[in-house]
Amino acid sequence: MSAAEFAPDVAKLHERLDREAGEGGYTLNPDREFTLRLVEGLADNEKRYGYRMCPCRLAFGEKQKDLDLICPCDYRDADLEEYGACYCALYVNEDWIAGRKPHKSIPERRPEQFVINGYSAPAPRPATGQPDRSNAPLPYPVWRCKVCGYLCARDEPPGVCPVCKARKDRFERFM
Amino acid sequence: MSAAEFAPDVAKLHERLDREAGEGGYTLNPDREFTLRLVEGLADNEKRYGYRMCPCRLAFGEKQKDLDLICPCDYRDADLEEYGACYCALYVNEDWIAGRKPHKSIPERRPEQFVINGYSAPAPRPATGQPDRSNAPLPYPVWRCKVCGYLCARDEPPGVCPVCKARKDRFERFM
Amino acid sequence: MSAAEFAPDVAKLHERLDREAGEGGYTLNPDREFTLRLVEGLADNEKRYGYRMCPCRLAFGEKQKDLDLICPCDYRDADLEEYGACYCALYVNEDWIAGRKPHKSIPERRPEQFVINGYSAPAPRPATGQPDRSNAPLPYPVWRCKVCGYLCARDEPPGVCPVCKARKDRFERFM
Repeated sequence: MSAAEFAPDVAKLHERLDREAGEGGYTLNPDREFTLRLVEGLADNEKRYGYRMCPCRLAFGEKQKDLDLICPCDYRDADLEEYGACYCALYVNEDWIAGRKPHKSIPERRPEQFVINGYSAPAPRPATGQPDRSNAPLPYPVWRCKVCGYLCARDEPPGVCPVCKARKDRFERFM
Repeated sequence: MSAAEFAPDVAKLHERLDREAGEGGYTLNPDREFTLRLVEGLADNEKRYGYRMCPCRLAFGEKQKDLDLICPCDYRDADLEEYGACYCALYVNEDWIAGRKPHKSIPERRPEQFVINGYSAPAPRPATGQPDRSNAPLPYPVWRCKVCGYLCARDEPPGVCPVCKARKDRFERFM
Repeated sequence: MSAAEFAPDVAKLHERLDREAGEGGYTLNPDREFTLRLVEGLADNEKRYGYRMCPCRLAFGEKQKDLDLICPCDYRDADLEEYGACYCALYVNEDWIAGRKPHKSIPERRPEQFVINGYSAPAPRPATGQPDRSNAPLPYPVWRCKVCGYLCARDEPPGVCPVCKARKDRFERFM
């Protein structure tokens, strides 16, 4: 199937996701036909469910139960970190592109109970109106880009700083 | 008035604001002629005052007194949250575009004393060189994007994550 | 030397850096020929060393020793703040462009011991898995954009908010 055979709305969504990926320091799979097929799945899911459900997983069809799998999913960045690609290989990083990470199937990172029962948000933190400064530990470490000061909270720093595009090794632990 | 009747610098500023809005997860009003008229007001104000004063409010003409009303104003995001549009309806969100929020006039959120006397910055926090880790509560809650780890401090999470474009419901309270 | 004389990969890298700069609220030097020459230096360094070493400084040629000088360097933003331009004048701000900052040579901000021995990362913070909420002061103040809530940790707020493009005077101290 050539790129010309994809519907115009699929090509348009691909273009948008590609631009947004770049702006945020992410990269779509450079295999254009493979990627267009995934984007077609996203567009189909958007029509069917009303949200861009991951095209490589089974949907419950209820937004709240699928929330963590709306693309980009909650597991993308951890998979990019460990495998150089997300579960679908829609998003990849430069290690994967350069072949420094093998192009193999990615294990499911979603917790088993979510696969069975659907996503379930953690209990909301008490909305006291008083932002928390207790001594309770933070749920994630906070990383700081040494170039521009960007802050984010995740297990590992991002591959690329979304603001200044500095690489992961320019981040330091901040909190 | 057709778009062709707007001066080239107005069209250029419109294009820039449109691109910057998209990059940050915001959306300009899709009514192009209405929006160009507002952008024309911004361009006029920039020439007159030296800053892009909100075209829908009265200016003091002193930057310090008008600071909170330089576009985008300090009240845009709270208005987008509550009404789906900013005070001018220059910035709107998808609920407003889809008609899930009524297209009505937005009440003035700026505190009355600022309307009368001009903006007045809160007393600066003591610049001790020692960033604060006191037990004083934070002035705003900190929200975390569960997809990419982006952090921001505001009353509510943003409609769209500026980094990965995930929607508001993918944010969690972090601090 | 006209722009046409630069190799296509240099022109392409220039275009990319220019777009990324704008997205993050930064500005490349508008003197296109001067800037292309610097970008050519970056492209040469990337071929030679495997990373985009600053074209205006001497390289050790070992990534770890040069890490703080990979462009954009760790000193860019402080130099933009103080002088309106980075060490190379590849990145400049609007004060510099408007001539409100003199176009003069920028002193080396890199600590002398790094110039002699190469970059040396600070001792990593203990990776206890427990993000730090101790009462130890934060290493940098945290700034908040009053328009969009963006947070960053740096000595001074950025010149332009990377998310909503509000100017520096719209930031407040947050932590």
